Amino acid sequence: MSTDPTTAPAGSDGVAGHPVAETVRLRRLGIDTYQEPVIFMPADCAVCRSEGWAAQSRVRITHGDHVIIATLNVVTGDLLADGEAGLSDVAWRMLAARDGDQLVLDPPDPLVSLRAVRAKVYGRRFATDDLRAVVQDIAAGRYSTIELAAFVTASAARGLDLAETTDLTRAMLEAGAQLTWERAPVVDKHCVGGLPGNRTTMIVVPIVAACGLLMPKTSSRAITSPAGTADAMETVAPVTLDLQHMRRVVEQEGACVVWGGSVNLSPADDLIIRVERPLDIDSEAQLVASVLSKKAAAGSTHVVIDIPVGPTAKVRAADAARRLSASLAEVGRAIGLVVQVVLSDGRQPVGRGVGPALEARDVLAVLRGEAEAPPDLRDRALTLAAALLEIGAAAPPGSGREMAERCLVQGGAWRKFQAICEAQGGMREPPRAVLTQPVLSVRPGRIVGIDNRRLARVAKLAGAPASPAAGLEMHAVIGQRVAIGEPLYTVHSQTPGELQYALAYVRRNRDIHILEEFS
Amino acid sequence: MSTDPTTAPAGSDGVAGHPVAETVRLRRLGIDTYQEPVIFMPADCAVCRSEGWAAQSRVRITHGDHVIIATLNVVTGDLLADGEAGLSDVAWRMLAARDGDQLVLDPPDPLVSLRAVRAKVYGRRFATDDLRAVVQDIAAGRYSTIELAAFVTASAARGLDLAETTDLTRAMLEAGAQLTWERAPVVDKHCVGGLPGNRTTMIVVPIVAACGLLMPKTSSRAITSPAGTADAMETVAPVTLDLQHMRRVVEQEGACVVWGGSVNLSPADDLIIRVERPLDIDSEAQLVASVLSKKAAAGSTHVVIDIPVGPTAKVRAADAARRLSASLAEVGRAIGLVVQVVLSDGRQPVGRGVGPALEARDVLAVLRGEAEAPPDLRDRALTLAAALLEIGAAAPPGSGREMAERCLVQGGAWRKFQAICEAQGGMREPPRAVLTQPVLSVRPGRIVGIDNRRLARVAKLAGAPASPAAGLEMHAVIGQRVAIGEPLYTVHSQTPGELQYALAYVRRNRDIHILEEFS
Repeated sequence: MSTDPTTAPAGSDGVAGHPVAETVRLRRLGIDTYQEPVIFMPADCAVCRSEGWAAQSRVRITHGDHVIIATLNVVTGDLLADGEAGLSDVAWRMLAARDGDQLVLDPPDPLVSLRAVRAKVYGRRFATDDLRAVVQDIAAGRYSTIELAAFVTASAARGLDLAETTDLTRAMLEAGAQLTWERAPVVDKHCVGGLPGNRTTMIVVPIVAACGLLMPKTSSRAITSPAGTADAMETVAPVTLDLQHMRRVVEQEGACVVWGGSVNLSPADDLIIRVERPLDIDSEAQLVASVLSKKAAAGSTHVVIDIPVGPTAKVRAADAARRLSASLAEVGRAIGLVVQVVLSDGRQPVGRGVGPALEARDVLAVLRGEAEAPPDLRDRALTLAAALLEIGAAAPPGSGREMAERCLVQGGAWRKFQAICEAQGGMREPPRAVLTQPVLSVRPGRIVGIDNRRLARVAKLAGAPASPAAGLEMHAVIGQRVAIGEPLYTVHSQTPGELQYALAYVRRNRDIHILEEFS
Repeated sequence: MSTDPTTAPAGSDGVAGHPVAETVRLRRLGIDTYQEPVIFMPADCAVCRSEGWAAQSRVRITHGDHVIIATLNVVTGDLLADGEAGLSDVAWRMLAARDGDQLVLDPPDPLVSLRAVRAKVYGRRFATDDLRAVVQDIAAGRYSTIELAAFVTASAARGLDLAETTDLTRAMLEAGAQLTWERAPVVDKHCVGGLPGNRTTMIVVPIVAACGLLMPKTSSRAITSPAGTADAMETVAPVTLDLQHMRRVVEQEGACVVWGGSVNLSPADDLIIRVERPLDIDSEAQLVASVLSKKAAAGSTHVVIDIPVGPTAKVRAADAARRLSASLAEVGRAIGLVVQVVLSDGRQPVGRGVGPALEARDVLAVLRGEAEAPPDLRDRALTLAAALLEIGAAAPPGSGREMAERCLVQGGAWRKFQAICEAQGGMREPPRAVLTQPVLSVRPGRIVGIDNRRLARVAKLAGAPASPAAGLEMHAVIGQRVAIGEPLYTVHSQTPGELQYALAYVRRNRDIHILEEFS
């Protein structure tokens, strides 16, 4: 007899008891959905039928200690048999799965934190606990793409005030790994993106490390740009280091330049950026939280932030830059970071190269003190190094620039850079592309503007960053006069197809360089 | 020699000319991603390398006259060879593809209409042209899931005024097929969802058709509910009719009850609902545009809208219902529809059955005039039929109810229903479930409330709507007194597993029926 009066007549234990968890056998499919966890199951499988699951259903998957939520794609072909399931590559990694493993599936609990997102849509502020819950759910992969996009859009449409931005920053910081270092200060720099070739990090790090400051730098790879610092650095030394190796490099040399992707700092940030970027919604709060949570998680205490300002840079006007500076400084203060902002010229690419190897060549020329080293890259790097030396108290106020320049001229920075590369696994020379083709001016004039965004697109069509040697070599800067047929830049590529794509794009976009007629 | 001075030295035509379109050979994979078009390509394929495409890239696919934009999933396993590509089922259908076909791939143009969505995020009104462009892009499948979610969220967060709502409605209407009929008025009804068992359409349609009005009814299947009208109707007659067949039925009988999914009315609506529903964001503008665009596209001239109001219905309070009524009437007027709203009791399920066949049984009992026919379902159907007869001018004001009741009592409605079913392909009896189990009250008391949402969940766990016979049979209504052990409802199911799931959920949710102690 059933002892539970809600069901009668008495059912068997199987029927009246709690549901038996559903299990499926895992088969490796090898499908990369980027960061969206997806589970693939056959259309007529018993589990889907009994759960009422269909394509786009959300499914909780348990595998040992790992629990994730994935979106269901239903396999109507013969890729999978009944009782089998496949996973997208990211879900496979998150679950530490192996072929043939058993997975336990059940319906996910409702996402309580989504209520706060919904309330934000209708204008309610996020409380501290709301943002902690939202960010923890995002970091754990519990938000679907749709839910993430709603969070990003609602935050931008309703805005986050400074207290909310601070709460968001702290929540993002706390949702991932947090590094600690034996000595202080720990300095860091960040550039608010949008400017091709602005590869100052690889010069700033050896300068400030040679001058005695600790600078454990984690950099990103390109997402939509032709090169990230990690991509450029990788053309001269390994950058995919585990935390132990990174620590050894920093203990030995006082600094490193590694790829941040392997150390799990502020993991919610990468997931938010995944939906934010295609929307191209510039939410100041998300930008501040993204930058500062990563810096704080890396154990930094003093941070210099470079904001290039220009019509085709990420920040387009001085007043927007000032507002952003104020938010960065204030939220930094609230979470215990000393933040200094440096506004810089964001009208045109920095240095000559655009693309991983071409940018690394510029960096090496500056470090080696070569005569043809790009003066703008050198100057920007010195400005940022000076700011770091001063806020890190390695140089008295007003003397940072002199100290940085001396370190560069006397070779200290170049020796430190080589030592860092050796400690990271060995230094090498950046590769050279097999195909090059100059792009010539179709008319005479004075260059009065350059569209950074479309220029970046040319470099990407040429193969950057996947092809490290691909990209652009700039020959002309704003203010310069060019004659008809004079080269504006040279496209570098490793395959004829990529070169062809880049040049076809150039042909359709003749106004990347804006020329003013000679008067 | 190249004649184009932007590239030098003169390249071959292959390099200097426009890019040659990339082609791939299609292989059927059979993966259902619901409504998101996805293209699967091997990780190391030449096209991806030369385009710089990676997982989540957007790709334009051309196949004959069909052009869609799909999201790239990269196959890292051995499902596909270089030069091959797979498609999700929806992309396959949109492209009318066959195994082995050649597809042409290139990067999509930037979505210009997204600028208006971005501007809405920052508070700018949508202009008429903005909404037309957004909706056309959505209907053509050019919006990604992320972009759709941003449109829905921004519209809810910033709100759409009446003019914007009217523009959205008109844009949605114009983006799909539009039916026209030989005579007027053409009447229609709609129920703003959320109330299990509210299957009045199958009674209203034969009444008003028997009384001489034209009512070409297209109904939806369940998306998150245990049954849609199309699901319930399908247990007694075929509902998947093509447009020609639907027209024949309407010409012959003056009415039909068919599934709207095969006639492409307001196609953007289904895509918007796909992202709106999981977010559970109630945007009044989206609701108005969704309802009225479908009615107008179906060729209706006079529409009665039933809004059930109750704490667990979609519309929870009288003032929200009044605001919604005003918007519906005003936007209806602007696009040339006569709209009348009927507010009804939304506190508990209508009739006895919840689930396709169980709801159809209630309908048949009312039409056949059986003694045990649910009086509430009968009464609601008569109210709506009366309103339609009056706004359609088939009955003088104040006499619609009497005309509707006479038609029902004298058997005219039942004969018309049978004739419609025969014309749609033949009438049948709804199926009965093989397993049933009553759920008993765990304590004595008077029922003061019922949670419609969780009750619907029980019916779905029992197998509805995929299993047409599955669902619930209600035994107790609000206001009724029940003793301990007295049945509240019976669960109907086709498999022991589904029955077990439903009962386990009941056990964890003992407060679906809210009881007040006897005083």
